[in-house]
Amino acid sequence: MQQGATEAQIEKIIARLVEDGFDVHRSTGVIHTVLGGVGGNENFDTAVVELMEGVKEVHRIISPYKLASRGFRPAGTVVKIRDVEIGGGKVVVMAGPCSVESRDQIERSADIVADAGASVIRGGAFKPRSSPYSFQGIGEEGLEMLRRAADRRRLLVISEVMDATQIPVLSTYSDILQIGARNMQNFNLLREIGKIRKPVLLKRGIAATIEELLLSAEYILSGGNYEVILCERGIRTFETYTRNTMDISAIPVVHKLSHLPIVGDPSHGTGRRDLVPPMARSAVAAGADGLLMEVHHDPDHALSDGAQSLYPHQYAELMKQIKLIAQATGRSL
Amino acid sequence: MQQGATEAQIEKIIARLVEDGFDVHRSTGVIHTVLGGVGGNENFDTAVVELMEGVKEVHRIISPYKLASRGFRPAGTVVKIRDVEIGGGKVVVMAGPCSVESRDQIERSADIVADAGASVIRGGAFKPRSSPYSFQGIGEEGLEMLRRAADRRRLLVISEVMDATQIPVLSTYSDILQIGARNMQNFNLLREIGKIRKPVLLKRGIAATIEELLLSAEYILSGGNYEVILCERGIRTFETYTRNTMDISAIPVVHKLSHLPIVGDPSHGTGRRDLVPPMARSAVAAGADGLLMEVHHDPDHALSDGAQSLYPHQYAELMKQIKLIAQATGRSL
Amino acid sequence: MQQGATEAQIEKIIARLVEDGFDVHRSTGVIHTVLGGVGGNENFDTAVVELMEGVKEVHRIISPYKLASRGFRPAGTVVKIRDVEIGGGKVVVMAGPCSVESRDQIERSADIVADAGASVIRGGAFKPRSSPYSFQGIGEEGLEMLRRAADRRRLLVISEVMDATQIPVLSTYSDILQIGARNMQNFNLLREIGKIRKPVLLKRGIAATIEELLLSAEYILSGGNYEVILCERGIRTFETYTRNTMDISAIPVVHKLSHLPIVGDPSHGTGRRDLVPPMARSAVAAGADGLLMEVHHDPDHALSDGAQSLYPHQYAELMKQIKLIAQATGRSL
Amino acid sequence: MQQGATEAQIEKIIARLVEDGFDVHRSTGVIHTVLGGVGGNENFDTAVVELMEGVKEVHRIISPYKLASRGFRPAGTVVKIRDVEIGGGKVVVMAGPCSVESRDQIERSADIVADAGASVIRGGAFKPRSSPYSFQGIGEEGLEMLRRAADRRRLLVISEVMDATQIPVLSTYSDILQIGARNMQNFNLLREIGKIRKPVLLKRGIAATIEELLLSAEYILSGGNYEVILCERGIRTFETYTRNTMDISAIPVVHKLSHLPIVGDPSHGTGRRDLVPPMARSAVAAGADGLLMEVHHDPDHALSDGAQSLYPHQYAELMKQIKLIAQATGRSL
Repeated sequence: MQQGATEAQIEKIIARLVEDGFDVHRSTGVIHTVLGGVGGNENFDTAVVELMEGVKEVHRIISPYKLASRGFRPAGTVVKIRDVEIGGGKVVVMAGPCSVESRDQIERSADIVADAGASVIRGGAFKPRSSPYSFQGIGEEGLEMLRRAADRRRLLVISEVMDATQIPVLSTYSDILQIGARNMQNFNLLREIGKIRKPVLLKRGIAATIEELLLSAEYILSGGNYEVILCERGIRTFETYTRNTMDISAIPVVHKLSHLPIVGDPSHGTGRRDLVPPMARSAVAAGADGLLMEVHHDPDHALSDGAQSLYPHQYAELMKQIKLIAQATGRSL
Repeated sequence: MQQGATEAQIEKIIARLVEDGFDVHRSTGVIHTVLGGVGGNENFDTAVVELMEGVKEVHRIISPYKLASRGFRPAGTVVKIRDVEIGGGKVVVMAGPCSVESRDQIERSADIVADAGASVIRGGAFKPRSSPYSFQGIGEEGLEMLRRAADRRRLLVISEVMDATQIPVLSTYSDILQIGARNMQNFNLLREIGKIRKPVLLKRGIAATIEELLLSAEYILSGGNYEVILCERGIRTFETYTRNTMDISAIPVVHKLSHLPIVGDPSHGTGRRDLVPPMARSAVAAGADGLLMEVHHDPDHALSDGAQSLYPHQYAELMKQIKLIAQATGRSL
Repeated sequence: MQQGATEAQIEKIIARLVEDGFDVHRSTGVIHTVLGGVGGNENFDTAVVELMEGVKEVHRIISPYKLASRGFRPAGTVVKIRDVEIGGGKVVVMAGPCSVESRDQIERSADIVADAGASVIRGGAFKPRSSPYSFQGIGEEGLEMLRRAADRRRLLVISEVMDATQIPVLSTYSDILQIGARNMQNFNLLREIGKIRKPVLLKRGIAATIEELLLSAEYILSGGNYEVILCERGIRTFETYTRNTMDISAIPVVHKLSHLPIVGDPSHGTGRRDLVPPMARSAVAAGADGLLMEVHHDPDHALSDGAQSLYPHQYAELMKQIKLIAQATGRSL
Repeated sequence: MQQGATEAQIEKIIARLVEDGFDVHRSTGVIHTVLGGVGGNENFDTAVVELMEGVKEVHRIISPYKLASRGFRPAGTVVKIRDVEIGGGKVVVMAGPCSVESRDQIERSADIVADAGASVIRGGAFKPRSSPYSFQGIGEEGLEMLRRAADRRRLLVISEVMDATQIPVLSTYSDILQIGARNMQNFNLLREIGKIRKPVLLKRGIAATIEELLLSAEYILSGGNYEVILCERGIRTFETYTRNTMDISAIPVVHKLSHLPIVGDPSHGTGRRDLVPPMARSAVAAGADGLLMEVHHDPDHALSDGAQSLYPHQYAELMKQIKLIAQATGRSL
């Protein structure tokens, strides 16, 4: 309560808390009176009390997420798909083009990706873009091409689901369903994803706090789908040299707060090919469970995200460095 | 080009631009060579060239949006619904509860809103929330209640559409379809909204630049739906006292760059009831074409957003102030 | 404490708090144990406890500032200089060029400023700039010119002090000493300013929270100088169209948290002349106690900040609008 | 120029540019006229033209900094102090307490730092803090203690200079003068530092872009002091879990844009001891030329920054990891 809060104000707050099922503890200090509410309605909106008269500030002590918290599963979650384990002792690399463009392109991509030692191929089939005039993806046909190329090289597939209606088709072709940064708070989609039993990679929104990322994961977990992988891909800040500012510290913070694995996406995190290798190394050094990266056989002519796609030789070179950094942090590639 | 760029690098860039249909003008200075590309592919991704060797920086001179730009319709757009004009000489107030909770609540709300002189009632029926454990709205039944209460008091209705599947039901009950901040870059939804012929209010995302807001409007306009109203409702910054930082300067900036009307939402812009009146006045003083505000007959027991909902007496008082500010800027309420 | 914190961990925390003079209250809940520390060392760094084992989070209930808080002087501070009162019922306008450039320029400025009804003239004499190659101000000679021009038109003078060594010369010529945004946390300067008995205008830093602004004011107040005026002049965000994002909501927030008056600076808040009038109106509508603005008799040839300086006729027109907005909020110019 | 700009407007812009010494090239396109200014006044403020009528946007092609740019010294700068080289093939670690507190504390610190293999000891003597009620440092006596402890263990000394008057005393005791984040744009201080011939470590301000950091370095270089080391220590963003968001990508970006070495400060970059090891590894993996870190023999009782100071055993463990990461990136410790 504020200094000088009246007894009437204090009692009004107590009554409001009791109304929502809280036991209220009161400590009267020389300057301030402090009220503590225990139990009560979990969904109680603390802001309701915060704006009542005489109140100085309100703190919520219980995390708003539970299933996503480290305490729920202290040993950590390992997402296992065939022989690939994400969240275990290996750094898992997921690489490939931004978009599936043609059968030839994706077959070449599978070779580039697999030859350098990655275990998952990425590629988007549905690409709504920020300008209505840009390339929008080739749809289900692209997924089929992606699956076929992956199978040929024994790779897993990750591809993005844009809305709930696409879940069936994505589930048919893809091993991991990716939820993009713009959909991190598309709660209808999260709820539907919670109902399926497929691994999902959830990207942090560019304006989302780490707590909000964990709350979005909670949506999926609360539906019963526990195979959630998080992904740091940059937040929006005042710095304009990079498209986003990759928040590397989110990696150890998520490991502290949650049991879920987290990977880094240096391609979207920086928006510039020349920054992908140092930021990929950096994410692994900070403990990332894997990487999601864009590589293209001819980035100068890619239909989307060319500027942030690695050249094949850059990618192969980077994989060697990643291996050394993984070893330096007690893991392997 | 960078200082010291080689002739071979310069020629490679020129070839790449010509490949995409550009005429290239070259100016050789003492320090730098500058290349200008004219014409060419509108969707050309400048970043492709930016990352090529020898390039220092690339600037796009043409705006990425056209239909949304002021130049497209210099006199400005007025969205007219029955006898209400948004973007004309009147400040249009849209007010009401965050969520429709019950028939009684919404009938009372209609009285509060209409008595104080507003012309549009707001209320949400579908409310996916950031926590999976919170109140999620009462659905179509709520829309029907909202419509009935509005008709009784001759108010227009605005309500939010969460995804493309809800467009038909919203179009049945609501005069204006609202697209929330989280959906500002839901391009599937924008494209579908572009196909209908209903006024739409598009909110700025909390991490969206003004240019991105206009690009999202472009999506709708390019589908043929020209009745777009923009809305500033706060951006995410480092300041934590307010939930968001309401970017009042976006109002005059949008008026300069675009012909579309823009309203301010001081409820979401601040997250705190006590800041709504000053920020509402402030938005109107900056030239806003209207306001979108939350008011509830009993905010302390609202099922959502209670802390930012005005008490009825606050709202009535504020409407008087708004009237004075509107007059001070040469308009009326 | 975290869920599952051990008794040993809890006791270690209690011991650490007692060591710094706190009385510790312990509440044992089903899930969490909550410890409350009362009294104790005011400068105690809560982060020390936050990082100890078993601790979930720490909240400081007492504000870190006291003299600057509204509770310290509920009626509000009015800074009175001759017949000008800042923080009372009048909106005080401080206007003039960014830099004093010449006697002719400053005499013309005084006429422009005074004719339109402002009561304070601004002008900088020492102008270190972000590029070492830019105009750096004309020094004490400029202050003397400014004082003389002000006296001729019976205006007060405000000018910026860049470091502690300049306090004597600024105190000689200027009625109000301005501390710039970059110096908001120059604590040596704040301490020295606290020792003098001259009104000071303290600008918010572009990365400073409102709480940090009040903490910086506390430095000055704790030295015994109570004549502090705060100034909102924009914070740095991801939006690049404006140089900074003027946080208009800081005005009502400061009025709630503190007794100190606050003015708005729309020139630095936007960096663009065309946005100064709407943002000036907006600041006054939000309750600002005054405005600090740049006006120049020939902005296209100003030696600094020309792009954000108003033309004389724009300024005169704006003053009329300000007057109307001030009246609409129950005040006068 | 804007679409529809008149011939008169175009000519007015040309005249304004010619007035400042530019050669103007004009390209008339179907939609836009583009004007290019070559040569001219280096300090020309592009915003002056940007706000003139008919202008759409203005881009500066020449960097505002020259001496700090990579092009000025393509091979990179190595700052050499005795046998320590910063910017060469070794990762240089600078560690020690936030503040010098006592002779005993600093002697212990020197042992901790040197035993684990660092070559520079840090420690602050002048500590103005954000609250006027906190510990403020012990002054010159502390510097003398620091120097003596360093000499005993053959370490170099780095310590912070708060304003220009402290340059002589710092130069006496310290091998490297540190300029703190809050002083990054204290241009008086930068100019004075430019006149001495001592290595300086310049920290990035929490709201400073990389370009602004390089402009501040330019101030020092333009005075003739070329021994400048840059430091990334976190920027302010909306994320509140960490005190700042350490912008790891700034490290490779600085290496691209400038010849100056850059180190990372994970202690201030995160504000939390538990995040220092992953972020230290991360900075080195991204190519940092060194690290600046806080370590204390008893962090729970440090007089400042205890929460972000490593325990001695953590620090020793971290040094081993750093060594491995340095090797994985082709360098050594």
